[in-house]
Amino acid sequence: MPASVLTQAQHELTNWNGRGFSILEMPFTGDEFKSILRSAQRNLRILLAIPDNYRILFMHGGASAQFSLVPLNLLGNAAQAEYLESGYWSQRAITEAERYCTINIAASSRASGFNQLPEQQNLRLHPKSAYCHFTSNETANGVQFHSMPDSGEIPLVADMTSDFLTRPIDISKFGLIYASSQKNIGPAGFTVVIVREDLLGRAHRSLPTIFNYELQSKADSLLNTPVTFAIYLANLVFQWISTMGGPSAMANRSVLRSAALYQVIDGSNGFYRCAVPPSCRSHVNVCFTLEDEKLTAKFFDTAAEHGFINLKGHKAIGGVRVSLYNAMPDDGVEALLGFMHEFALEHTADV
Amino acid sequence: MPASVLTQAQHELTNWNGRGFSILEMPFTGDEFKSILRSAQRNLRILLAIPDNYRILFMHGGASAQFSLVPLNLLGNAAQAEYLESGYWSQRAITEAERYCTINIAASSRASGFNQLPEQQNLRLHPKSAYCHFTSNETANGVQFHSMPDSGEIPLVADMTSDFLTRPIDISKFGLIYASSQKNIGPAGFTVVIVREDLLGRAHRSLPTIFNYELQSKADSLLNTPVTFAIYLANLVFQWISTMGGPSAMANRSVLRSAALYQVIDGSNGFYRCAVPPSCRSHVNVCFTLEDEKLTAKFFDTAAEHGFINLKGHKAIGGVRVSLYNAMPDDGVEALLGFMHEFALEHTADV
Repeated sequence: MPASVLTQAQHELTNWNGRGFSILEMPFTGDEFKSILRSAQRNLRILLAIPDNYRILFMHGGASAQFSLVPLNLLGNAAQAEYLESGYWSQRAITEAERYCTINIAASSRASGFNQLPEQQNLRLHPKSAYCHFTSNETANGVQFHSMPDSGEIPLVADMTSDFLTRPIDISKFGLIYASSQKNIGPAGFTVVIVREDLLGRAHRSLPTIFNYELQSKADSLLNTPVTFAIYLANLVFQWISTMGGPSAMANRSVLRSAALYQVIDGSNGFYRCAVPPSCRSHVNVCFTLEDEKLTAKFFDTAAEHGFINLKGHKAIGGVRVSLYNAMPDDGVEALLGFMHEFALEHTADV
Repeated sequence: MPASVLTQAQHELTNWNGRGFSILEMPFTGDEFKSILRSAQRNLRILLAIPDNYRILFMHGGASAQFSLVPLNLLGNAAQAEYLESGYWSQRAITEAERYCTINIAASSRASGFNQLPEQQNLRLHPKSAYCHFTSNETANGVQFHSMPDSGEIPLVADMTSDFLTRPIDISKFGLIYASSQKNIGPAGFTVVIVREDLLGRAHRSLPTIFNYELQSKADSLLNTPVTFAIYLANLVFQWISTMGGPSAMANRSVLRSAALYQVIDGSNGFYRCAVPPSCRSHVNVCFTLEDEKLTAKFFDTAAEHGFINLKGHKAIGGVRVSLYNAMPDDGVEALLGFMHEFALEHTADV
């Protein structure tokens, strides 16, 4: 969370807007919360230039819920959907979707050990598929689509949880985008779904009402009590991103910050190793390894002594991961760069 | 929310436990959050004396999600379930459950306009039903079960959202209890599910993984990112309830406070009218009406001038509703009693 947002939330926590009550106590049916919800929708629409024919929903649960809710809402009468397989999280999405329909792997980068991305020229799409799903940034593998796949007439669906609002996107190319709140939006608690109007109304009959995009859209995400506090914080974050210059400023920032990290890695004479080629490298999650487990453990321990925490790679992959979400302050990145440089100098002889 | 909990949360918001980071930024996979989650489970288990063969889950979404997730998790091979129809919220639960199986209305108080409750002697249960569902307190109608229904061998399932932790309960009489967080637990964001172990493993195959009780139980509610901040606040509320004397102290308090309100109503010579007979009256939501809409509007306006807000009855029912959730301070109730008495004195001549 950006420090200024935390400070404002702290200041207002017991007395919102001078009204004498906490945002945590506000009924979701009241005008106060509705004004916050509408402000959050409006600010997000402006930030990403979301066209009028797209609805913005705030859905319960995280992105993992959407792994099921996307097929349950979008399949309609179709029996199949396309998925791009690009790493850990797209595989999670595929495993869950397979419970509801036939999944065609339109393209996969499995052969590269998911150090690369599926390529546009290799996409094999079936015209009867309900949608084509991909994961725009793979946090565990450290790969990111720098140009979006093109699925032609088949609605393109993206899990953008980890790089949402880190760059401008052309929403009109997508059928649906989802992003859970705990990376670049605010605290854990909900998932933003941006959906093109014509894709509503295809829900499976067994879908619980409150997870139905069409019904939540008609109810303005207020079919039942939403996660009021998280939505309030999200709105503060949207305003902060706007103040910072919007998604293009965020993109410049993450390009520069990730480039500086990759430079330390590539300039370390193999002390740090990034298996991902430059064209696929994530600007959000910089993943790398060291010589062996002993040195990696030493790296984490020494980093922690210097105050750098949460650097462990995803448990399925191992190694080191530096996450550059929007709220990560620049001086934190600079200090880490200095530490990595020093650590390599001190321990190169050990290798 | 209790004032002391809000103050503590405010104090810790930017610096949890002196660790230099916010609870809002804590990874859910880290030891810090896991210790909070386990503390919350332990404190709740102690407060309600929850036996060891019951699991405590923190599920995404509100009680309305459970209207679907209860049948999707508990039906197994059964084709029917029992529901007690006692007012607005039990009807909502029935409508949602009807999408998944045959619903037998075991008993209904519809004939009383839901001013009374279904009676034990009228229960008609089918032995093949997967479970028997009821709503322990109907917030819109102002009725509350003061003794719990007995469904014999059929697992008893209760939506306790609105009176959870307002009184002791004998958990061993239930198969499953659920309560969404925004009434007596903390802020909106999740639902506590307390489920007897032997009822796990009956989930419908189309159920999204993260809404599967058995899988969330095995993962200790950490299958995916939970609503970390709301769970942290819930734990503070559990500690507050314990400090206040636990559920029996809460029960004494709500009996006394609601009795004082009903006394003003019953002693107003028909100025205030409560259609619910004393045996069914809710100790949590005191619902009443005035002579006509004009006088009711005058009541709301004058109350607001005196700082009393959120008194409107549920939109489906109308009238006035005073909610006595645990966090409502005693002096707030006393001031409201005084106001109601004065308002009746001033306006009795208008009737």
